[in-house]
Amino acid sequence: MFGITHTHSPYATSFAARGERIPAVLTPITHFLGRDVPCAPYTSPSFIEMGAAIVEHAKGGWAVLVKAHGVFTMGTSAVQSTSIAMSHEEAAKTEHLAMMRGPVDELPADEIKRCYTWFRESYGQQAKMP
Amino acid sequence: MFGITHTHSPYATSFAARGERIPAVLTPITHFLGRDVPCAPYTSPSFIEMGAAIVEHAKGGWAVLVKAHGVFTMGTSAVQSTSIAMSHEEAAKTEHLAMMRGPVDELPADEIKRCYTWFRESYGQQAKMP
Amino acid sequence: MFGITHTHSPYATSFAARGERIPAVLTPITHFLGRDVPCAPYTSPSFIEMGAAIVEHAKGGWAVLVKAHGVFTMGTSAVQSTSIAMSHEEAAKTEHLAMMRGPVDELPADEIKRCYTWFRESYGQQAKMP
Amino acid sequence: MFGITHTHSPYATSFAARGERIPAVLTPITHFLGRDVPCAPYTSPSFIEMGAAIVEHAKGGWAVLVKAHGVFTMGTSAVQSTSIAMSHEEAAKTEHLAMMRGPVDELPADEIKRCYTWFRESYGQQAKMP
Repeated sequence: MFGITHTHSPYATSFAARGERIPAVLTPITHFLGRDVPCAPYTSPSFIEMGAAIVEHAKGGWAVLVKAHGVFTMGTSAVQSTSIAMSHEEAAKTEHLAMMRGPVDELPADEIKRCYTWFRESYGQQAKMP
Repeated sequence: MFGITHTHSPYATSFAARGERIPAVLTPITHFLGRDVPCAPYTSPSFIEMGAAIVEHAKGGWAVLVKAHGVFTMGTSAVQSTSIAMSHEEAAKTEHLAMMRGPVDELPADEIKRCYTWFRESYGQQAKMP
Repeated sequence: MFGITHTHSPYATSFAARGERIPAVLTPITHFLGRDVPCAPYTSPSFIEMGAAIVEHAKGGWAVLVKAHGVFTMGTSAVQSTSIAMSHEEAAKTEHLAMMRGPVDELPADEIKRCYTWFRESYGQQAKMP
Repeated sequence: MFGITHTHSPYATSFAARGERIPAVLTPITHFLGRDVPCAPYTSPSFIEMGAAIVEHAKGGWAVLVKAHGVFTMGTSAVQSTSIAMSHEEAAKTEHLAMMRGPVDELPADEIKRCYTWFRESYGQQAKMP
């Protein structure tokens, strides 16, 4: 099973508009992705190059932005890829608001990894991803 | 058939408040309009001059802002002109958020033209505008 | 008949939080109020002084902010005062967004007066206030 | 009876993202909490240390942020702790908007205390907290 979701959701796409990645500032983003959301350079919609750029810049992760375009997420089902897209829109909104008031700190790489593993293996009654 | 839609939708109207055009930064805006959204100078509501300024500044396009007032869109039906107005509000929101974090690049004129044509002639199951 | 509406609606109250008036930048605000929305200094909720400050700073108009508190509107019915409060929240949102990108111009006093009179006396099928 | 609510609501969490407290700028925030909302330093989700940091930094109050994580509120019921969380999200939104336009003043400590007591003992038909 496999799922792909594509959105122009406004907060995440506002990072794409400037070619910015979404940094891993908040624990919720670490739970779903275990890393930041990278941003691929602009490639024209409808060409095979756009798909290739998404795969290359996702670097094995589950979400990637394309500059001047929007959000692309992947999962083991359409429910999962959509859940990841919605979670990142919330994270992008919260981080945008924080960045309006001043600099934000990214979580350290080892803490991101710990949160990601904990959410998958030990989190309450909903330990499994949708 | 012809349609006209007028809104004070907040993000697009915030560009009108300052007499700013909405630049063509994102591919979704290029699909519907094939250009930026220009802003006409202020003319009083209810006078014929306002209509004339809208037609002049639209320059053959499908959307125009009027300074200190709001958004005016045109289409081959009321559904189409409303769809254009809603699409531009989303684009204005996303671009506003991006502009809060720093400068944005406009898409090159030839890429805007390519996206516009592609959306009308080749896009998936919904190649025709509403 | 008389109506009073009090809200903590977020955009208008954000002006109150800093003791700022809402300037008359957009034609919609001129239709309902015919002027900017002034801001009274802070007075304690529950004391008669707060009511007196609202009346004094409203200066015969239909809406006033109280610093660090919220929005107070008046009308010839509760429907009208609520309609005025909702209209100003929309105007405050749009003006806030515009002010984030740079300075805004207020409409000239004579144009505000013209719009206000026109909306009451000549506007389409809904010439009368609710 | 006791209630705890935990959210990642975007405006309040944007303060948490930067390790900022939510200042007591508006009378509505004083009614529910009688003080600002402090922010505890980051501690890993799932460890007992996070609970201890929340209790320590709440300092006997009813709401606390955890850096890079979110909002935690307490009450005498789940309805009350959720009501406090929702009220603070509204206050955080309004204060964020105000802080985008310039500095805000906090209410003086004695006025905060007066509002807090008045809301509990004398406020209209709903003098009791939910």
